[in-house]
Amino acid sequence: MPVQSASRVPALMNVATRLRIESVRATTEAGSGHPSSCCSAAEIVAALFFAEMRYDARDPHNPDNDRFVLSKGHAAPVLYAAWAEAGIIGRNAPLTLRRFDSDLEGHPTPRLPWVDVATGSLGQGVCAAVGIALNARLINSEYRTYALLGDGELAEGSVWEAAEAASFERVDSLCAIADVNALGQSGPTQWKHDVEAIAARWRAFGWRALTIDGHNMSAILDALDQARATRGQPTIIVARTIKGKGISSIEGKGGWHGKPLKKGEEADKAIAELESQLQPEDEPLPPRRVPKRVERPAPKPAHLDTVSYTLGDSVATREAYGAALARLGDGDDRIVALDADVRNSTFSEKFEEKHPQRFFELYIAEQIMIGAAMGLAARGAIPFPSTFAAFLSRAYDFIRMAAISGLNIKMAGSHAGVSIGEDGPSQMALEDLAMMRAEPNITVLYPCDGVSTERLLELAAYHSGPVYMRTSRPKTPVIYTADDAFTIGGSKVVRRSADDVATVIGAGVTLFEAITAHDELQKQGVAIRVIDLYSVQPVDASTLLQAARETKGRLITVEDHYKAGGIGDAVASAVAADGFTVHRLAVPDIPRSGKPEELLEHYGISARHIVAAVKQLAS
Amino acid sequence: MPVQSASRVPALMNVATRLRIESVRATTEAGSGHPSSCCSAAEIVAALFFAEMRYDARDPHNPDNDRFVLSKGHAAPVLYAAWAEAGIIGRNAPLTLRRFDSDLEGHPTPRLPWVDVATGSLGQGVCAAVGIALNARLINSEYRTYALLGDGELAEGSVWEAAEAASFERVDSLCAIADVNALGQSGPTQWKHDVEAIAARWRAFGWRALTIDGHNMSAILDALDQARATRGQPTIIVARTIKGKGISSIEGKGGWHGKPLKKGEEADKAIAELESQLQPEDEPLPPRRVPKRVERPAPKPAHLDTVSYTLGDSVATREAYGAALARLGDGDDRIVALDADVRNSTFSEKFEEKHPQRFFELYIAEQIMIGAAMGLAARGAIPFPSTFAAFLSRAYDFIRMAAISGLNIKMAGSHAGVSIGEDGPSQMALEDLAMMRAEPNITVLYPCDGVSTERLLELAAYHSGPVYMRTSRPKTPVIYTADDAFTIGGSKVVRRSADDVATVIGAGVTLFEAITAHDELQKQGVAIRVIDLYSVQPVDASTLLQAARETKGRLITVEDHYKAGGIGDAVASAVAADGFTVHRLAVPDIPRSGKPEELLEHYGISARHIVAAVKQLAS
Repeated sequence: MPVQSASRVPALMNVATRLRIESVRATTEAGSGHPSSCCSAAEIVAALFFAEMRYDARDPHNPDNDRFVLSKGHAAPVLYAAWAEAGIIGRNAPLTLRRFDSDLEGHPTPRLPWVDVATGSLGQGVCAAVGIALNARLINSEYRTYALLGDGELAEGSVWEAAEAASFERVDSLCAIADVNALGQSGPTQWKHDVEAIAARWRAFGWRALTIDGHNMSAILDALDQARATRGQPTIIVARTIKGKGISSIEGKGGWHGKPLKKGEEADKAIAELESQLQPEDEPLPPRRVPKRVERPAPKPAHLDTVSYTLGDSVATREAYGAALARLGDGDDRIVALDADVRNSTFSEKFEEKHPQRFFELYIAEQIMIGAAMGLAARGAIPFPSTFAAFLSRAYDFIRMAAISGLNIKMAGSHAGVSIGEDGPSQMALEDLAMMRAEPNITVLYPCDGVSTERLLELAAYHSGPVYMRTSRPKTPVIYTADDAFTIGGSKVVRRSADDVATVIGAGVTLFEAITAHDELQKQGVAIRVIDLYSVQPVDASTLLQAARETKGRLITVEDHYKAGGIGDAVASAVAADGFTVHRLAVPDIPRSGKPEELLEHYGISARHIVAAVKQLAS
Repeated sequence: MPVQSASRVPALMNVATRLRIESVRATTEAGSGHPSSCCSAAEIVAALFFAEMRYDARDPHNPDNDRFVLSKGHAAPVLYAAWAEAGIIGRNAPLTLRRFDSDLEGHPTPRLPWVDVATGSLGQGVCAAVGIALNARLINSEYRTYALLGDGELAEGSVWEAAEAASFERVDSLCAIADVNALGQSGPTQWKHDVEAIAARWRAFGWRALTIDGHNMSAILDALDQARATRGQPTIIVARTIKGKGISSIEGKGGWHGKPLKKGEEADKAIAELESQLQPEDEPLPPRRVPKRVERPAPKPAHLDTVSYTLGDSVATREAYGAALARLGDGDDRIVALDADVRNSTFSEKFEEKHPQRFFELYIAEQIMIGAAMGLAARGAIPFPSTFAAFLSRAYDFIRMAAISGLNIKMAGSHAGVSIGEDGPSQMALEDLAMMRAEPNITVLYPCDGVSTERLLELAAYHSGPVYMRTSRPKTPVIYTADDAFTIGGSKVVRRSADDVATVIGAGVTLFEAITAHDELQKQGVAIRVIDLYSVQPVDASTLLQAARETKGRLITVEDHYKAGGIGDAVASAVAADGFTVHRLAVPDIPRSGKPEELLEHYGISARHIVAAVKQLAS
């Protein structure tokens, strides 16, 4: 260990002790929280924030600051204590922990400028850290990314998706630290203190893995030095720690997960004990290293001036998606694409062909695909992760947390609904609209043709917040032109007359069933209105209400999705306050393999069923 | 290699060739499917079905049959071909592949009696296989479980959750085989043919890992022998294979994933080439070994004769859940519980205390928790996996596939909604009802007190199909007695009068807000009806309609859930056909940390908001 490291050890150990004290104070004041999980990590956090990391404490927005992700989000108080120690927040701010009027929540959220992604669902922070580290490459920054994991969360499969991806991408700017305190919430972890067993897993996945005593400051500093010097692979420091370290009454004991010390004697005694651990300092801590802020050109949105399709063309929206993404990427370097080994089906390969350096293949691992996108978005990229819409369900917890974070991720799901045909239900997304709409801040778009795909993709890219775009497998005719305007929250009335007896609302493939039904009914002398609900969330209530009023209150939705949570519910919810109800055509039960047309017909969402519904309602 | 193995090799190689031929025939006839992924696995499948596995081809329901899970579900045709070869289905049945009128779907589903779980979403079959193998212990059977994985799917984190769990549980009756054909859908996998790199990962996770040439029948048989002889750990056979093996025009080539050979010359040539590979047989295959069917007592449902709580008691439904599960488990050995390291919060620890041998701790890994439950359910257990409801979103793709399979899993999610308080949004389930309701065959139950928890838990256990039960963190008063009857699809009118001016529909914690609002309004001379919607799916349309008719069409829902997909939508959908609409109180946006009461109030679902809504509607 270099001499300069040794001399700062006592001061850093005192920082660690103060972090423990403040973690106890904050959780005791809050009456809930995780002091024991903070105590095991105190030396690690002290070493990171006061010796290792380069950051400008006055400027959270310096893009070249080293990044820290608290993957074990429940240890939030130790992070808040580190900020207070660094002067980022006030000395007493941590005492507002978990209060309704404080942003220092039970788990960190990016409402706080030093937090990139909300954590608290374990095994996610490290995935975001991979994306954050990949972003450093994209923006040519030397910032390093640190992720602190608990040992319990190493059981999450997403951690191993992150491990594989980071090793495959040789992200040597990434350093993970596992706080192996051997105790989960309900008992010992499966590995207890066997740090070598844990390290062996990471080594097998291609990481450099160092095992240390996580309360030995010199060992921590040395390991961080080694990590920083490592090239071509990420590093994990597997640190043996004691839960509740420093407080003899709870040190290493079960039953102290997520439990504050009681105000009064219990807490006072613990704080006194911790204070007694403060030691003389050889010398004060050296000033922190502040990264040079690299000047970069201000980002500029791209714009697709022209449309790529003309009326009568036929193109699958999934293919138009890939083409539009590639085009938009020409004009904006922030746009990146992520794939889970289906780029030739989602057509994200079109983006890869033009922008290989901004395309990330995560292989068949949807959690790291979304997780890495979260990290990329947190650092200013505009990531478009895409896969079969059905498999986005694999990452729903990540999507949920991305929504909590309000991150700028642009998800695309192809192969929606029974219209994919023969592959059968495992490949059909029939609950994706429900799962995306459930999150109140996710924008849900659903183009029906090539032109609307291009327009909506551009809107998605520059909308602030998470967006989901649903694309379809079959080719569909192009019905829009460059003159058609699209907005988030809008819709298109594609057929209308003064005599309309009902309104049929479709989107994607079912819009064409609705148009076919319109034509068939027209032959029979019955006029209907047809609306393309390309923005499923937010939904165009005013157009829907106007249609309801003008078509005798008869609204029929038709969607290639299960009944609950999709277009039917979106429309019903929008018109309910005005007393209108909706007649829903949707896939009523678990489907099976078959030809697309057979399935649309069998599950009641074909033109024939729309005709029948109109006649029933209008009779 | 023993002599008896050597002599059967030519016959088994011929089986493999026939499986290839039939896979080509079926996919060519269907015009879609995955012949190349079948060809890489042909020797493995031949060895398993015609040398290794013990099963009674005439009795799929023999509980002592060895089990096979096709985790790489897209290779379904090779499985169907093996069944045809074994006489399980007709020789030409595979030619109905992917047809609407055939159960031989694009990916296997348990509509077929030899399939335990639907596969097709990669990385899931191996999780189910862990559950199937655990079941062998529970029923004292000697059956072995085999799971065939593709190499691409090894990127899924769920595979490593399964790896960790199987090794922790020392499930030596489990043998996984990885078909390492080096090609994913869109290109080479990250490991290509580096079988040692793959084996190293499994060894680090505690498995015995054997690497072999997956087209060398003797090597396969030998590895299966070794796996069978292995004690104390599961085995994986990492088999180097060639995608499209046997068909020189596609062997090892990219661009042949999920692509059938064209009918006519292309397919004919391939079949002719395969036929030329048939070889003279030293001797016919020996008859298959059929397992002895062990006689076991017929299972009998348990029944909770008494209720554990009296009016005025106060108990959290999560705690009542654990207690009821433990009680029900006394009377029915099929009931098992699975946890993801929150047993002391969900109170599944109460079950563990009484039935430790039927309790499985999967640690912080929700995908394997649900996946193992799927496997257990497939073999006759009644598994209750539980965790925080928010974290069930981690396993949504598994839940989706469990729904496709119609499996008998009984999921419980605790800590629903903002009423958990200070931990903040990462721990709050606010989309769980939406995600569960989206699946048309998932029953969704939501008890409000101790007695209804007990009653609903018993109903859940013996209902056929997947069930979700939502429980709450705060204590709530007991309002039901032994005289109250509950049914799936039912509800309870807990307050009613002839003068009701509106109906308020709540469930769980919001039911008590509704009751408080009722009492407050009563003081002001306003009468309302209050309904406990304990069955959220299916929903009690007739009671709701009656209430709507009797209370001037004024329906107000109040739920600790986001607006989309929950109770509001469930009720709206049920009453729409009769022209009624619903006024919804739900959590409108991403919440934050705070006290439960503060949060209920701030997000508009407290008694005060209900009172205001009633007054607004009834004014």
